[in-house]
Amino acid sequence: MDERAALERLAGRVPAAGDDCAVVEDLVLTTDMLHETTDFPRGVTRYTAGWRAVGASLSDVAAMGAAAHAALAVYAAPEFDEGLLDFVGGAQDVCEAVGASYVGGDLDTHEEFTVSTTAVGRTTDPILRSGAAVGEAVCVTGSLGRSGAALRLFEAGETERANDLFRFTPRIAAGRALRPYASAMMDVSDGLARSLHQLADASGCGFAVRSPLPIDESVDAVAEDREDRRELGASFGEDFELLFTVPETEFEAARNSTDVAVTQVGTVVEDGISLDDEPLLDRGYTHG
Amino acid sequence: MDERAALERLAGRVPAAGDDCAVVEDLVLTTDMLHETTDFPRGVTRYTAGWRAVGASLSDVAAMGAAAHAALAVYAAPEFDEGLLDFVGGAQDVCEAVGASYVGGDLDTHEEFTVSTTAVGRTTDPILRSGAAVGEAVCVTGSLGRSGAALRLFEAGETERANDLFRFTPRIAAGRALRPYASAMMDVSDGLARSLHQLADASGCGFAVRSPLPIDESVDAVAEDREDRRELGASFGEDFELLFTVPETEFEAARNSTDVAVTQVGTVVEDGISLDDEPLLDRGYTHG
Repeated sequence: MDERAALERLAGRVPAAGDDCAVVEDLVLTTDMLHETTDFPRGVTRYTAGWRAVGASLSDVAAMGAAAHAALAVYAAPEFDEGLLDFVGGAQDVCEAVGASYVGGDLDTHEEFTVSTTAVGRTTDPILRSGAAVGEAVCVTGSLGRSGAALRLFEAGETERANDLFRFTPRIAAGRALRPYASAMMDVSDGLARSLHQLADASGCGFAVRSPLPIDESVDAVAEDREDRRELGASFGEDFELLFTVPETEFEAARNSTDVAVTQVGTVVEDGISLDDEPLLDRGYTHG
Repeated sequence: MDERAALERLAGRVPAAGDDCAVVEDLVLTTDMLHETTDFPRGVTRYTAGWRAVGASLSDVAAMGAAAHAALAVYAAPEFDEGLLDFVGGAQDVCEAVGASYVGGDLDTHEEFTVSTTAVGRTTDPILRSGAAVGEAVCVTGSLGRSGAALRLFEAGETERANDLFRFTPRIAAGRALRPYASAMMDVSDGLARSLHQLADASGCGFAVRSPLPIDESVDAVAEDREDRRELGASFGEDFELLFTVPETEFEAARNSTDVAVTQVGTVVEDGISLDDEPLLDRGYTHG
């Protein structure tokens, strides 16, 4: 079984799973694992790793429209050195940026640098992936492609700029601001293309998306050509922006509710996922 | 830095950490990582692994005197096969045994079978490690040494019996029953000897412990001699019983509050940790 097939087999057995967070009474809960070979390219500082790993879980909380309450992390490495303290500093700083408490976790001696993070959010009215309706606008916050651009910069040895791009502010404030308007929401951690397919599956709809997409300016500096630019922006993923749907009549109010840029990228349709009338395949980065 | 030194350096930076769970408003939160080379001996089924890993986190919730609310797990392995479904079955069953919801988690492709678990409990009045007072009774629930005995049985190839011993019921019900009486509490996941030192450090006291200790009958079947029996019972650890202190006048009421056996093993003293008047060293299994 690959990861997606495994998730499908589990879906029937763990009914609380399947959205960005599990919902249990007034809590939303999420946990993730990242590790060196697949998630932390050479040059990522431990501070960035702590920020990013905890931020990824907080992004799932944001996607539910919930307030960020607390986060935990397990830090597993061959040895515990100053990098551990840097990691905790990054974890604390990303929590502070969104009003969450970083409350520690666990240490584990492990051959490969491996991090597991958990975030807890609170809301009595979570936004699920399943509420999109035909005719609504489909929108994203911020810009896409930062992580893809960062990866190219890590490969090129430009680690300082790459680390900057690899840290991101989880969209907790935007998620809460959008909560009165959004009918469905998720984060685009697996790339816009794959996320659109996931949102469509959960809501039983399709999406007609039109360029230009809000691709981050950092992508322009690294993209080889137009095709590569679109690939980094729409498919690479790990951008931790919010993808959401909103009735057209409420789009302006939704956009004005938050300081973060909100771009309408398309419309909810009956079925099929297209970009400029061409099929947009369910293709992206399958995270290890 | 070894794990303990690292924890000490972190203690000042993450004030919520340091007890069995972090306390955030009315929630108690804990996360742990286990992996194949250090935590799952050859012969452990994935069902047992799921039960035990999630159970270990639930045991931390029990140690706070909290109700078990929900648990999550990350399952990381080279591939996803039927073992994943068995693991989830074990995770669900241990949650069901203590009234918690198992709400899924994450999958990760990882070279080494690695599991990360999180448990969330609820209480407005957690029992900390820091409340023990001189003159009180120090007690343990259940019996000690099951995990040590299980390890010997795994080594001997008696995997069915070993798997039975490796699964345990987290002491959630006992923890809640003892809450009105206990002045300090923790679980004995690192062995009685080490746990006594940790409780003494947190409470600023000592313990005078007297044999016989409540050593599990499974230990008798595998211990080589009396010394080995005591080692498995008092130092090996991973038993997930509760260690707590209670005023002598309330010991009977505390014991009668729960169906689980409660044994007084000693008395809270000014300082020093002794077993039958000999120093009991801070020695146990340092979990990887």
